[in-house]
Amino acid sequence: MTRERLYLYDTTLRDGQQTQGVQFSTPEKVQIAKTLDKLGLDYIEGGWPGANPTDSAFFDDAPKTRATMTAFGMTKRAGRSAENDDVLAAVMNANTPAVCLVGKTHDFHVDTALGITLDENTENISRSIEYLAKQGREALFDAEHFFDGYKSNPGYALEAVKAAYDAGARWIVLCDTNGGTLPVEIGQITAAVIAAGIPGDHLGIHTHNDTENAVAGSLAAIDAGARQVQGTLNGLGERCGNANLTTLIPTLLLKDPYASSYLTGITLEALKTLTQASRQLDDILNRVPMRQAAYVGASAFAHKAGLHASAILKDPTTYEHIDPELVGNARIIPMSNQAGQSNLRRRLAEAGLEVDKSDPALPRILDEIKAREDRGYTYDSAQASFELLARKELGQLPKFFEVKRYKVTVERRKNKYDQMVSLSEAVVVVKVDGEKKLSVSESMDESGSDRGPVNALSKALAKDLGRYQDVIEDMRLVDFKVRITQGGTEAVTRVIIDSEDGQGRRWSTVGVSPNIVDASFEALLDAINWKLLRAER
Amino acid sequence: MTRERLYLYDTTLRDGQQTQGVQFSTPEKVQIAKTLDKLGLDYIEGGWPGANPTDSAFFDDAPKTRATMTAFGMTKRAGRSAENDDVLAAVMNANTPAVCLVGKTHDFHVDTALGITLDENTENISRSIEYLAKQGREALFDAEHFFDGYKSNPGYALEAVKAAYDAGARWIVLCDTNGGTLPVEIGQITAAVIAAGIPGDHLGIHTHNDTENAVAGSLAAIDAGARQVQGTLNGLGERCGNANLTTLIPTLLLKDPYASSYLTGITLEALKTLTQASRQLDDILNRVPMRQAAYVGASAFAHKAGLHASAILKDPTTYEHIDPELVGNARIIPMSNQAGQSNLRRRLAEAGLEVDKSDPALPRILDEIKAREDRGYTYDSAQASFELLARKELGQLPKFFEVKRYKVTVERRKNKYDQMVSLSEAVVVVKVDGEKKLSVSESMDESGSDRGPVNALSKALAKDLGRYQDVIEDMRLVDFKVRITQGGTEAVTRVIIDSEDGQGRRWSTVGVSPNIVDASFEALLDAINWKLLRAER
Repeated sequence: MTRERLYLYDTTLRDGQQTQGVQFSTPEKVQIAKTLDKLGLDYIEGGWPGANPTDSAFFDDAPKTRATMTAFGMTKRAGRSAENDDVLAAVMNANTPAVCLVGKTHDFHVDTALGITLDENTENISRSIEYLAKQGREALFDAEHFFDGYKSNPGYALEAVKAAYDAGARWIVLCDTNGGTLPVEIGQITAAVIAAGIPGDHLGIHTHNDTENAVAGSLAAIDAGARQVQGTLNGLGERCGNANLTTLIPTLLLKDPYASSYLTGITLEALKTLTQASRQLDDILNRVPMRQAAYVGASAFAHKAGLHASAILKDPTTYEHIDPELVGNARIIPMSNQAGQSNLRRRLAEAGLEVDKSDPALPRILDEIKAREDRGYTYDSAQASFELLARKELGQLPKFFEVKRYKVTVERRKNKYDQMVSLSEAVVVVKVDGEKKLSVSESMDESGSDRGPVNALSKALAKDLGRYQDVIEDMRLVDFKVRITQGGTEAVTRVIIDSEDGQGRRWSTVGVSPNIVDASFEALLDAINWKLLRAER
Repeated sequence: MTRERLYLYDTTLRDGQQTQGVQFSTPEKVQIAKTLDKLGLDYIEGGWPGANPTDSAFFDDAPKTRATMTAFGMTKRAGRSAENDDVLAAVMNANTPAVCLVGKTHDFHVDTALGITLDENTENISRSIEYLAKQGREALFDAEHFFDGYKSNPGYALEAVKAAYDAGARWIVLCDTNGGTLPVEIGQITAAVIAAGIPGDHLGIHTHNDTENAVAGSLAAIDAGARQVQGTLNGLGERCGNANLTTLIPTLLLKDPYASSYLTGITLEALKTLTQASRQLDDILNRVPMRQAAYVGASAFAHKAGLHASAILKDPTTYEHIDPELVGNARIIPMSNQAGQSNLRRRLAEAGLEVDKSDPALPRILDEIKAREDRGYTYDSAQASFELLARKELGQLPKFFEVKRYKVTVERRKNKYDQMVSLSEAVVVVKVDGEKKLSVSESMDESGSDRGPVNALSKALAKDLGRYQDVIEDMRLVDFKVRITQGGTEAVTRVIIDSEDGQGRRWSTVGVSPNIVDASFEALLDAINWKLLRAER
């Protein structure tokens, strides 16, 4: 059976940036575009060139992608030609192979928001799309508020999208801009558009999650015949977000009727990177990944109910609709039972620690991890801290040195030019091979800027560790993440530090405390101990 | 037109408790039950009496509710009578007016999980439901894995649910236990059950969110004729959660075809408490509320895109599918580098600052905001810092006091019991009315625990502000959020602080610096200045 081609269009970098609190930098946009391309998306909408400096900078130096790079903009304004519209010119100047222009199709908006006649609006759409086609660009038309427009004035809504189609648009994208249309209605109206003469393989669907139906609405449009789906990674987007591609992709690839009816640009091999892509985006945004996210959430294959957990051990298909490995995720079964222990032994083996099934340290390690996770620690990513914890319980952790005390001072005062400046200073006292060593460092970097107390502390701690000094010389702190795991006045801080060394190793450590300096110190200490451990082996 | 009755069944206290990391105490269960009852749910499933001490304690002293209190359990096991099944006896002993029993309807599970014959299973269902009816209880049958069962062996799946119906079950609840059935299929199979002789007004639907379609699946079952919907507040539940009642309730009450076709137990007046009920549950669970949640999320009516924000100013219905006040939520127009001057003027007006369109301060304020956002500031949520910035540019910010310098010390050392302990101390020097004031505080809270350097600094800054001291006495820091806006060694920290005062005002301020103590200090300073400003007006 031949499967029909379904096209996936990502707008994380444009509509996803409308999320409250989200502001990508240009390097972050490049990183996300590369991830999307590796995954196999067909189109990547990179932003709106000219609308803000970040988007313009992205297109100035856009990464080369297999996916069709697309610039977003709006149809020309009334009273000038497409050639003379400066907003449109900025979009064209990004020189992308495809351009997507948003335009009005809802009579109420033409009147209220634009204040022009319906005919003028239709004319703006036609001329703009014609212009794109003449310039050799693949033209997409985002029909804003299409579903509400169709309900208000079906004749005009259809006239507007037909104008775009007749002018040469490759895709007419039906947008449910305010997210209020329910799936059944999306299906019916999409079918009506096809019946009115726009073929389904020229129709796209763009939904929002305001009624938690963005995924269902997209599926309903596909069922009705649309062949392009727009969405974002992790469902980023204005208000409640866009259709979540992280959910739609595995649904389309793995579940019937979609898996057997359609072909996308994403391979089953690439699908295995989905969980990682989702977590990477959260990392960039410094967001806590949603545990309950479909397919990729840490809880998506966690079986807590006693009845479920025991059935899962007999046969995973009893309570799982797909195999978690297909999306790069993993099954979680409560720590207390056997599966928890075999899981633990696998992680220990990964760290080079072969532990016998009957070793009494195993339940002790599980208990310790659970107790610490309750206090805010996380060992999902802090693999190095996990290994140190396990080694301690197994009696396999040498004590390289001892920290006797530290003291950090943060001062802010006027300098001689009457400017307010800050400076931090840290004193660390350690005992190595019976010898006490006092080290002091300050927080100034090479350029004379203050980098704060954790910087000073990190430098003082690594300044003199006696015979270990040579080993840690090639270490450097490459990333530092802070999260408040418990809000309010009782705030508890979790710090995760990523370190690297000259041999290309990268490892993560974690510290937790109500005192952010303490939490950082704990993570720094783990980082150094792990490095010393590796040097020993 | 008479509207058909639709029944809402809440299982937050039972299935919701299967969420990874969720463990309600008995008083918490009581509090949630009262909230659900106030909202107007028809059924409250309180838990499984006998399965764990918390659930048993809840039923021992269950709150009196208008809603039908329901105990959950499972059908009797093979080889004993319903009367002699001790697990069922514990459920009956809770003495609830309704009892919901889960049982198998999928041939594969009868065989794999129970290891009994299909006939034995049918017999267990019949006898159990008969027993409930004989005891005068309203009987509900949860048909576990019904949709997978129907796909595997439709004859047996129907036989099993008919056995429950014929034995006197008021409701047969079709459960998509592993969350894998898509909405269209849920609709088709529900219709098939009705065609096979079980009336729709005896059918319930219970879905899970493993493909992000739990809400859509519930709606599809209602469309097909089911008249009871099960779900949880905030979509709590095993793996990816259950159908989210917080989303389903407003959809059913406010959106067509549901609003005009069905009647529920929830009034439009009670609907206005929905956002509050959702936040209360997050408070109980000590979770950060999901900003993007449909209807009740803090971002659900936030309009960031410049085009959207300016249209919203003309008419809110342009980008909102419902009025946020109907669910007790509020509109937010955040500042961001995408928003234009009209957005800015609107936000200034909200802060009580009427600024003329032609005021040259407007572009200056926008430029300043853009420049600061590039450095890591965010004014989406930090409304108070936004107001201070704008007032400064408008020349409307009094200088209440001046900070001359501060110094914070963080020390970690051994105490007299040879334990490592931390203590921070802060000295702040301010000038108020020409008078220099030195204040010192430490980071210990009432219980003797160290709360870190920011705590010490916050206390020292608010210790003596001369004639302003009375005004700030009722202020308190209620939340503290830290983000690294730029990773790596050049890490820049953003701190957002939420404050409250005795008059119930709550405001947010922001600070940014490579030095986390400095960033916090900036946000603290803004918080105090905003409070002094409000006191003046």
